[in-house]
Amino acid sequence: MTQPHVEFPEHRSLGTVAMQWHGNRLELLDQRLLPNEEVWLTLDSASGVATCIRDMVVRGAPAIGISAAYGVALAARQATGEHWALSIEAAIKELAESRPTAVNLFWALNLMQKALFECRTPEAAVLRLAEAAIRIHEDDINANLTMAEHALAVMEEDSPFSVLTHCNTGALATGGYGTALGVIRRLHEAGRLRQVYADETRPWLQGSRLTAWELMRDNIPVTLNTDGAAACILAQGHVKWVIVGADRITANGDVANKIGTYSLAILARHHKVRFMVVAPFSTLDMSLSSGQSILIEERDGTEVREIRGHALAPEGVEVFNPVFDITPAALIDVIVTERGVVRNPCATGMKTLFED
Amino acid sequence: MTQPHVEFPEHRSLGTVAMQWHGNRLELLDQRLLPNEEVWLTLDSASGVATCIRDMVVRGAPAIGISAAYGVALAARQATGEHWALSIEAAIKELAESRPTAVNLFWALNLMQKALFECRTPEAAVLRLAEAAIRIHEDDINANLTMAEHALAVMEEDSPFSVLTHCNTGALATGGYGTALGVIRRLHEAGRLRQVYADETRPWLQGSRLTAWELMRDNIPVTLNTDGAAACILAQGHVKWVIVGADRITANGDVANKIGTYSLAILARHHKVRFMVVAPFSTLDMSLSSGQSILIEERDGTEVREIRGHALAPEGVEVFNPVFDITPAALIDVIVTERGVVRNPCATGMKTLFED
Repeated sequence: MTQPHVEFPEHRSLGTVAMQWHGNRLELLDQRLLPNEEVWLTLDSASGVATCIRDMVVRGAPAIGISAAYGVALAARQATGEHWALSIEAAIKELAESRPTAVNLFWALNLMQKALFECRTPEAAVLRLAEAAIRIHEDDINANLTMAEHALAVMEEDSPFSVLTHCNTGALATGGYGTALGVIRRLHEAGRLRQVYADETRPWLQGSRLTAWELMRDNIPVTLNTDGAAACILAQGHVKWVIVGADRITANGDVANKIGTYSLAILARHHKVRFMVVAPFSTLDMSLSSGQSILIEERDGTEVREIRGHALAPEGVEVFNPVFDITPAALIDVIVTERGVVRNPCATGMKTLFED
Repeated sequence: MTQPHVEFPEHRSLGTVAMQWHGNRLELLDQRLLPNEEVWLTLDSASGVATCIRDMVVRGAPAIGISAAYGVALAARQATGEHWALSIEAAIKELAESRPTAVNLFWALNLMQKALFECRTPEAAVLRLAEAAIRIHEDDINANLTMAEHALAVMEEDSPFSVLTHCNTGALATGGYGTALGVIRRLHEAGRLRQVYADETRPWLQGSRLTAWELMRDNIPVTLNTDGAAACILAQGHVKWVIVGADRITANGDVANKIGTYSLAILARHHKVRFMVVAPFSTLDMSLSSGQSILIEERDGTEVREIRGHALAPEGVEVFNPVFDITPAALIDVIVTERGVVRNPCATGMKTLFED
């Protein structure tokens, strides 16, 4: 018996996305191999998707959440017999354990769990969970498109200007289009973009490996630079905005984001270049009053000591390798979400995003 | 007939130097292979030394100048016959062409040429040129030791503190001890150093490859960090001074130095961390009124796109790869030379270094 397919609808250009849902299978672009190789993996089970999340085939908080949702939809296609619902719940649990610290992952799986509760038969679950995953995917894209419109309304420059960005926040990191890179994509579509400067973003090099690749693929003019050259670029005067994403935003507008973001915010303020943070509403964590409550997670020093197994530094040298840093709200000119923008963010301003 | 040797005298600990003069040969540590391999090359000719300079076996402006001087001394040992002086001059010319932009190289070779003029016989030249090269080497070390004493007198902190540095300005880059890293070495000797944070210094990674290696060898506590993590470290409050070297200092106190230095100066000022530049008097270029007169040289993008032949970025991506940047004097708290220090550098202050 052939199970019904629910496919992802056609969209206008969303950039080079890293996932494709084909109704009965999920295809993921192996981001570990970029930019050297473009290899697509085909997944037909939740376990396969969980492995891809764990092994960083897919990265970027929104992209992880969406992939996991499709993983649940795949689990439904394999769920038969008396305990069909339990087997889907086991898949949800397995996916939840694939990247235990990713907030978007839990958020997406929670929505999938709710959709599962509505299903009375395994046949209904196949359709309902595919629809729910597609809905999560579409909502993410729509949020990105809305953020881009909000952001463009904020940027009042008359003639095309350059921007500088950090890490990868593009179509690859999301369901499509991107957050900060979505804004940059929209600037390009509107003929308002002169040049994107992309920090290479040590130690993981998402700027070199992913952002530069994605922008070149989409014919958006990109220049790559070391993180240490950003100040030199800002001093030249062409860059009017630094545009970055966020991992978490606290109630006062402080922003946790990829290591190097805080440095950029200080450099932007010094050069009177404006600093924009673009992130979906789900990134807001109103339970934390400020960024000082966020523990700065450190990762293994091997990421700094080595690159692709080649030693760059003496064996055993001590390394300080924080994953992200905290940019205080006072250094941020505007925070953009799909629910609206907050200029000169502070606790009062952030609350306006929760008003109907 | 055995020629007489003039050997380099014993010194107190100067750190892990990258060159050793043994009277009839020069040994150079191949810095290209650090930190993975420690290979010493033995040179007995000026041509061999010129090749080592050209191929970056030895790097760091002072170290290049000293090596070249020893190269001339080696040429004297091979100069025989009627045209002995001409053959030494040919060696000077060959060495001068090895790294055409290195100011210290010409300065050292000029001193060697003057010493050659004083010699009437090839036998005299063997001794005189070896003595002159050793003198250049010793003067460099003495300048480093003097700068370190001057710098320590400026730093008034009572209890041990941490410092942050950029690139490599140590024993490896000089005749021994180091400029900025010499100051850090002296702080350690004086029991006033808590921890050195070393920027990895993209794209060449002199921080990872050389500074971390040199400090570990000398048991000076070092923590390596990506350039983008420096702001995060300064925000922690342990670092009281950022200490860097200089490639050139203009008449108003602006400093050209390795890319990333300007960024650090802005970050230091933002965090109220003091910023010190340590460089020999020969680094001063009073012919330039300010750093704005310095053309920012760019190097090939391959240095950013690849590491050890491995692609990090898409093929052909445009790269902005400036070699150095300009730190305006207003961001510098103190410039230290062997002739004295200039606090809050400006044109008037810099002139005091020229007073007797």
